[in-house]
Amino acid sequence: MSAIRHALSTKREDDFAQWYQEVISEAEMAEESGVRGCMVIKPWGYGIWERIQRLMDDRIKAAGVSNCYFPLFIPLSYFAKEAEHVEGFAKEMAVVTHHRLIGDGKGGLVPDPEAKLEEPLIVRPTSETVIGAAMARWVQSWRDLPLLTNQWANVVRWEMRTRMFLRTSEFLWQEGHTAHTDRDDAMAETMRALEMYRDFAETELAMPVIAGEKPEHERFPGAVGTYSIEAMMQDGKALQAGTSHYLGTGFAHAAGIQYQDKEGAQQYAHTTSWGVSTRLIGGLIMTHGDDDGLRVPPMVAPQQIVILPMLRDNDEDAALLDYCEDLRKSLCSLKAFGEPLRVLLDKRPGKATQKRWAWVKKGVPLILEIGGRDAAGGQVSMLRRDRLWNDAAKPNFVALAKDDFAARAVSEIEEIQASLFAEAKARRDANISKAASFAEIEAYFAEDQRYPGWVEVLWSRPSGAELDAVVQRLKALKLTMRNTPIGGEPVSGTCIFTGQPAVERIYVARSY
Amino acid sequence: MSAIRHALSTKREDDFAQWYQEVISEAEMAEESGVRGCMVIKPWGYGIWERIQRLMDDRIKAAGVSNCYFPLFIPLSYFAKEAEHVEGFAKEMAVVTHHRLIGDGKGGLVPDPEAKLEEPLIVRPTSETVIGAAMARWVQSWRDLPLLTNQWANVVRWEMRTRMFLRTSEFLWQEGHTAHTDRDDAMAETMRALEMYRDFAETELAMPVIAGEKPEHERFPGAVGTYSIEAMMQDGKALQAGTSHYLGTGFAHAAGIQYQDKEGAQQYAHTTSWGVSTRLIGGLIMTHGDDDGLRVPPMVAPQQIVILPMLRDNDEDAALLDYCEDLRKSLCSLKAFGEPLRVLLDKRPGKATQKRWAWVKKGVPLILEIGGRDAAGGQVSMLRRDRLWNDAAKPNFVALAKDDFAARAVSEIEEIQASLFAEAKARRDANISKAASFAEIEAYFAEDQRYPGWVEVLWSRPSGAELDAVVQRLKALKLTMRNTPIGGEPVSGTCIFTGQPAVERIYVARSY
Repeated sequence: MSAIRHALSTKREDDFAQWYQEVISEAEMAEESGVRGCMVIKPWGYGIWERIQRLMDDRIKAAGVSNCYFPLFIPLSYFAKEAEHVEGFAKEMAVVTHHRLIGDGKGGLVPDPEAKLEEPLIVRPTSETVIGAAMARWVQSWRDLPLLTNQWANVVRWEMRTRMFLRTSEFLWQEGHTAHTDRDDAMAETMRALEMYRDFAETELAMPVIAGEKPEHERFPGAVGTYSIEAMMQDGKALQAGTSHYLGTGFAHAAGIQYQDKEGAQQYAHTTSWGVSTRLIGGLIMTHGDDDGLRVPPMVAPQQIVILPMLRDNDEDAALLDYCEDLRKSLCSLKAFGEPLRVLLDKRPGKATQKRWAWVKKGVPLILEIGGRDAAGGQVSMLRRDRLWNDAAKPNFVALAKDDFAARAVSEIEEIQASLFAEAKARRDANISKAASFAEIEAYFAEDQRYPGWVEVLWSRPSGAELDAVVQRLKALKLTMRNTPIGGEPVSGTCIFTGQPAVERIYVARSY
Repeated sequence: MSAIRHALSTKREDDFAQWYQEVISEAEMAEESGVRGCMVIKPWGYGIWERIQRLMDDRIKAAGVSNCYFPLFIPLSYFAKEAEHVEGFAKEMAVVTHHRLIGDGKGGLVPDPEAKLEEPLIVRPTSETVIGAAMARWVQSWRDLPLLTNQWANVVRWEMRTRMFLRTSEFLWQEGHTAHTDRDDAMAETMRALEMYRDFAETELAMPVIAGEKPEHERFPGAVGTYSIEAMMQDGKALQAGTSHYLGTGFAHAAGIQYQDKEGAQQYAHTTSWGVSTRLIGGLIMTHGDDDGLRVPPMVAPQQIVILPMLRDNDEDAALLDYCEDLRKSLCSLKAFGEPLRVLLDKRPGKATQKRWAWVKKGVPLILEIGGRDAAGGQVSMLRRDRLWNDAAKPNFVALAKDDFAARAVSEIEEIQASLFAEAKARRDANISKAASFAEIEAYFAEDQRYPGWVEVLWSRPSGAELDAVVQRLKALKLTMRNTPIGGEPVSGTCIFTGQPAVERIYVARSY
């Protein structure tokens, strides 16, 4: 059996980080912008983000949450207020200090000293403070609650070491912010958002995740409880792919979000916030990509089927294109996942095989190659991205009558979605081990395996200095605690860190 | 006949500017944010923007343009390059100079002097420079052209005097940027975008506009030709509601966008840019609003029909709500303008008449009030926002059998769209006069009419100092030249400014 000649020059097992960059570059998803820490998101990458946006937005709206838009700039004083009572306050932010440029007399431009702002403005790293101020204006009575808002926006966190989609100075996200009369209602919203993210990750992105609570030291600064979805990348590392926070009344106190209850007394609201970002695209790449490039789950693929006519620059091309266009139209009238199929007829000049490999690297779920003879004979040649190679190490084309393909196109697309999830879930599950002692953790991660997975352990949920000791022991092994799964069965046993009775499970892993 | 008691406290004819603010406030579209020059766009205002975005985006994609995302920050040096050769270079921009905050030792925060950026970053006022740099990387050969990109983004222009939706320091927009092999192809794209905007304004927004070329002194800095759509507001002022620019090869020279032509020679690309912004919402308000608030054209209304059950907090409410929910479901299965009807059942607590007036002020196209007796008798009571008052100065409710309403719901919605356009067009057309001399312009605008419209004049398209003299004469009357309509019939006559033979028509007006 001959060896497969993969489309990428770097294999996952050889250099995962390099492979990741190559996928992004070869799939034309994004590139360095020349502006420090910021990327340009190219059409294929942005098209995936648009799909994520639209499907997530449908879910957010279905939950009764209203989209708004809040200012990009936040006055410095808003942060000073927060810094007072939040220890973990992050300070790496872009600061606007001037509002005008003038010539420097040498042909260049400088910030105009006359146009210095009285109060510096911060480019939003997240919008709790400015949305809190709006909520304080909007909330008067219990009748105004719950107040459910969301925004789609860009945010900036100055990052020293950046990696495309995973950690960039500017990124795109949605941030939900809600206010409630009491803890129960706010916690219900926190968990609703978490479950929305879990289901979205597993359904739309075909990316299995663990939904759970972050340990105390990993809470969002000021939060009472932070919950996350955690996905396992193909190198075994964990990626935090979405978070949902119950903020108690702390932010309401800072912003003055008060309401009159049914008895006429003034109460502070209980607030939540929850978000996912373009980081999901990084997770998608490292969950589904292979040595031939990206594989996009059909639900979020900008195009689900690409038709490649094998043009020959001769008289027969017109008939071939007609045939392909008829096919495209009939496919577009079909629906998968409740939406019309997204089908592109790629008429661009260029060799069909080159174009094929470009689409393979982009990870379009299904390619149809059609030559003049196929058109004459009413045939198509189908290549599924999730079954790219046959036993002879050749592209796994399946020849079908056009009508037979049309009849099964939807089920093929739906099957690809399911098969990507099944593959990722099997890999994830196979790479979670249980450790009954700290020594077993040490042994597991010390082994000479290139990509260790996660270990599941029992712990006593220590706090304060006792927790810090655990964190430091793990840190020495480059490990972190990910989360405690929601709704797990009761545990019995001993905490592997403290020796005290265990109260829950928690996952330990290397992470992004 | 008794007098109508309008929903707003300010009438358009009494104080148009105050009326405008009141519509925005009472319709809960937006509010001041507490951050200088920035607004909070609230759900109803943002919902209209989401409709505009989705419908415009469909048109942009249908034209073969791909969405991308480019960095928020642009290095100062990019602007220095532009400033060198662009006289009209605008300097009022937000400048980021630091990337960290530290405590000031007095409990406050200040920009960390240690974290001063080597090169300041500008918050994008528009993205020509950074997109030009990307295009220079992406374009190698004539095969890469045309390159058609667009982004939906926030931009910042430091404004001293702001007005919500019309002029804010931060605003939301789309900016199309394209590169072409030659002038003809770039001009075709410039005009395609202009026509897209014209048709969008008139179809989706029901807002009549004149598509035309801006005079030389109003060109985008660096552009060879600037084209606009101009709408007449109800106070007679003109609003530039969208622009499309042919940039020649100037930006390609600055950014180095070169391609190898079919003969192997290096050529500079011809570029275009085109954009519309949240300003469209200001135009929509001042085109369709009346003394009872906003009226939203159904195509861009977040909700087209609101069902208001007259709840009485008693046992009959359940049956009434069932009746309303059945009606909502059956209406949602109907399509207007090719999309399912958007129907909201407003179950919130509160008096039905209060809720009615809140929806009237928001301008929802059609309200259905339904009481217990209506439900029992299979009736609905319909109120069209564009026909709000009857001859007796009462809300113009029409009682209908539920099934009869369902049968005509789509045509009612489509009729409202058409009637709003017809009303706006009739008003616009009635307020354009012709002036055959400068004295006639002076007389027209000097007359004691509160809201003068536009005048159409013939001119010789003067240039340079001769044009400047015209601009100054008009400026003394607080007038501006708007645009020269595309595709007008040939003119014959004399330029009212220069006395030379006229070559085209141009509109003169006060403006936003």
